[in-house]
Amino acid sequence: MTTALLLIAHGSRRAEANADLLRAVEDLRRRGPYAAVEAAFLELASPSVPDGAAACVAGGARRVILIPYFLAAGVHVRRDLSAFREAFARQYPEVEFRLAEPLGPHPLLLDVVAERAREAEHG
Amino acid sequence: MTTALLLIAHGSRRAEANADLLRAVEDLRRRGPYAAVEAAFLELASPSVPDGAAACVAGGARRVILIPYFLAAGVHVRRDLSAFREAFARQYPEVEFRLAEPLGPHPLLLDVVAERAREAEHG
Repeated sequence: MTTALLLIAHGSRRAEANADLLRAVEDLRRRGPYAAVEAAFLELASPSVPDGAAACVAGGARRVILIPYFLAAGVHVRRDLSAFREAFARQYPEVEFRLAEPLGPHPLLLDVVAERAREAEHG
Repeated sequence: MTTALLLIAHGSRRAEANADLLRAVEDLRRRGPYAAVEAAFLELASPSVPDGAAACVAGGARRVILIPYFLAAGVHVRRDLSAFREAFARQYPEVEFRLAEPLGPHPLLLDVVAERAREAEHG
């Protein structure tokens, strides 16, 4: 099964915040083993979620995992992403779309917090 | 130097999202070695950032590290947290307040994304 990842962030007017996601996507592409890793934004930035999904399909994916790049996905984000998933399943019937959990909560986030604390204290 | 951590999230109307931060704080308390680890929210939830700072000081901290619990801290969040830091430094002149970086970007976040992808694909 050829799988692609579509990382979906909220999107910001601040180019730097959007660039964080694009860098994460570049790093994940280098790691492999996915057929494609694409970025998309719910609003305020491009590419849109449908454009990101289209890029995954164009990359040859038969399965696309939608990953909310959020510490926590609220009701609205979950609803929007579920609606996208259903629309994509209709639009691309030969492709399976799955919705992943958001980043948090996860124990590794505590390691990141601890490192940010150390940097601020000693850096 | 007795150091406390104050983790600051945006705050949500959704109790579950706020509970993620409270659980992270509990876990960080168990890890140590900080004099106190407290949670605070910029809006929509309690405790407020001033109440969280007061709790850190009451816990005996001589240094308080404000940690933005955000994947990316935009202009508004950075400005608000810098203003809090300056206000707290005036209010508690015997305590040093430092502002940490937000969680992202960080390589461990890529590990979390990879795990979310694996869970969605195989879980």
